[in-house]
Amino acid sequence: MNSASIPASVTVIGLGNMGVALADAFLKGGHPTTVWNRSADKANGLVEKGAVLAGSVREAIAASNLVVVCLSTYKVMQEQLAPLENELSGRVIVNLTTGTPEDARKTAKWVSEHGGQYLDGAIMAIPQMIGLPETLIFYGGSKALFEAYEPTLKLLGGNAAYLGEDYGVPLIYDLSLLTMMYGAWYGSMHAHALLSTANITGTEFLPYATNWVNHLIAPLLTDPVAARARDEGNFTTDVSNLNTNKLGLEHIIHASQEQGITVEWLMPLLTLATQKVAEGYGADSFDRVIEAIRKPLVK
Amino acid sequence: MNSASIPASVTVIGLGNMGVALADAFLKGGHPTTVWNRSADKANGLVEKGAVLAGSVREAIAASNLVVVCLSTYKVMQEQLAPLENELSGRVIVNLTTGTPEDARKTAKWVSEHGGQYLDGAIMAIPQMIGLPETLIFYGGSKALFEAYEPTLKLLGGNAAYLGEDYGVPLIYDLSLLTMMYGAWYGSMHAHALLSTANITGTEFLPYATNWVNHLIAPLLTDPVAARARDEGNFTTDVSNLNTNKLGLEHIIHASQEQGITVEWLMPLLTLATQKVAEGYGADSFDRVIEAIRKPLVK
Ligand SMILES: NC(=O)c1ccc[n+]([C@@H]2O[C@H](COP(=O)([O-])OP(=O)(O)OC[C@H]3O[C@@H](n4cnc5c(N)ncnc54)[C@H](OP(=O)(O)O)[C@@H]3O)[C@@H](O)[C@H]2O)c1
Ligand SMILES: NC(=O)c1ccc[n+]([C@@H]2O[C@H](COP(=O)([O-])OP(=O)(O)OC[C@H]3O[C@@H](n4cnc5c(N)ncnc54)[C@H](OP(=O)(O)O)[C@@H]3O)[C@@H](O)[C@H]2O)c1
Repeated sequence: MNSASIPASVTVIGLGNMGVALADAFLKGGHPTTVWNRSADKANGLVEKGAVLAGSVREAIAASNLVVVCLSTYKVMQEQLAPLENELSGRVIVNLTTGTPEDARKTAKWVSEHGGQYLDGAIMAIPQMIGLPETLIFYGGSKALFEAYEPTLKLLGGNAAYLGEDYGVPLIYDLSLLTMMYGAWYGSMHAHALLSTANITGTEFLPYATNWVNHLIAPLLTDPVAARARDEGNFTTDVSNLNTNKLGLEHIIHASQEQGITVEWLMPLLTLATQKVAEGYGADSFDRVIEAIRKPLVK
Repeated sequence: MNSASIPASVTVIGLGNMGVALADAFLKGGHPTTVWNRSADKANGLVEKGAVLAGSVREAIAASNLVVVCLSTYKVMQEQLAPLENELSGRVIVNLTTGTPEDARKTAKWVSEHGGQYLDGAIMAIPQMIGLPETLIFYGGSKALFEAYEPTLKLLGGNAAYLGEDYGVPLIYDLSLLTMMYGAWYGSMHAHALLSTANITGTEFLPYATNWVNHLIAPLLTDPVAARARDEGNFTTDVSNLNTNKLGLEHIIHASQEQGITVEWLMPLLTLATQKVAEGYGADSFDRVIEAIRKPLVK
């Protein structure tokens, strides 16, 4: 038998909705798979498919070189792993738990101080999408380490995107995409609140919203020229300037207040726009506001 | 000569960037066009093309049945028109000035009290797009009045959308679309602020942002099933529930605070999400938040 024919054993710690899907994908890929979960019964389905249920986290770590962790929070992960720091030597921990970039960086440091290797990851998918070729998972850490485990990790999501050495970057990408979503989502909910004041349904509004999303909002968020201009701090515009947008925000705020709709979330944006207009940037694009919140880029 | 061959004379009050474009479109459509602006020099180009410059707002109103107003604010419009309330009888005022829905409703009342007829409109385009067949302008007011002037108004924007009798609705649609844009735009600026903490450019992030916008954000904002569910107050989900989204918001907020990025605009959303989780709706969709800001729909 040659070694290529025997997939290496892997361990999955945490069998929530996501952890179960991850372990399942490894089993489907033919890897001997050891699992652990606080509530052991969540392993039942996996054990039926051939997984080994470890009796403790210590046993689970000992069972494989590659240990994938997917718990609810970094705090839970620390509670589980901190007592086992002497077991990390020679192990590769791939942590797919969501947290902050600093959580990821600190965990990487801690693993490496105890002789282990570390990759941090962020899953951009729901459990049902685990194992599909198009499923996106971000990774950060040593490139050589990522490449060594890439074929195995691709069993979880075929679109395994390596983002560089900084362990914090996968979560920065993850949280940045989420932030875009929450901004758009809350904007849409506020729009529906405005519409409700004249008893207009979302369905009645939808044809206009759809046209606006496809022809204005999506291009705004995905235009390479605009992205480069932002990167370079080039805030010229010949379409709609900061003065106009400040007025637009004021109209939204006044109209919402007239109808008793809370505008608290829009006030910081108006404050930033007002500040940039006061600094003399009224003829620039609305993106000028970014200066007040972004760190300077060094390239 | 039959009357169809002589386009009726029209008046445009206000020759800012937008007013000039409106008057220009009427001239191109063959309408004898009278214009007025506080700074008379802005009429020069139009006069060369055949427009008549009125010496006063009074003269401008007297010149045509159809009077299109496009000034910077409703306040400016009131200053100009209030002294001329006795000139309104028999006139049709189409007001394309941006303001709040209540501004529009009050103006309609005032015009009608003085024997005039009124349509309120909202232009969803920049001046460069005035006169194009695809250009969207919302109108509200009497349907018969809209239909009588529809061919003329279509010279300004071929996509003239009549939204019903409520004079406030064109501005509600306008401000709702703008609110969607500002939410998405600020979300994207905040994302770039997060990215800048690891020196990641918008250009590096763009492939992922584009994929996310096309496959997640745009569908979220344009899905007819989701719009109907929202209308009906059906907040079930099998994808991502309020608990998960509350955690996501908390991660964004913590990660931003760690990096000194202001999170003020996200706090009201987290408060609403937390409130709805506390009320027992954690397993519902994030859209459940809308209950806290929307008026009940009556259909
Ligand atoms: N689900 C998604 O769509 C999705 C998408 C992307 C990323 N993620 C991330 O993946 C991670 C897991 O998500 P999930 O959906 O699997 O969550 P979940 O279904 O809520 O599962 C949570 C997991 O954490 C464990 N856990 C919680 N508190 C614990 C404690 N005090 N001690 C020991 N174990 C504890 C749970 O064990 P018990 O079973 O014993 O409670 C379970 O294994 C999260 O960081 C999430 O943000 C999830
Ligand atoms: N431009 C766009 O892309 C756009 C798009 C959609 C809707 N709109 C709306 O269209 C309206 C006009 O916009 P615009 O772009 O044409 O604005 P603008 O270029 O700033 O022009 C403002 C107009 O208002 C007049 N004005 C301002 N203060 C006045 C006062 N105290 N007394 C008399 N006249 C006064 C100006 O006269 P002077 O020339 O004498 O200053 C000018 O005619 C606004 O409500 C705007 O929201 C504009």
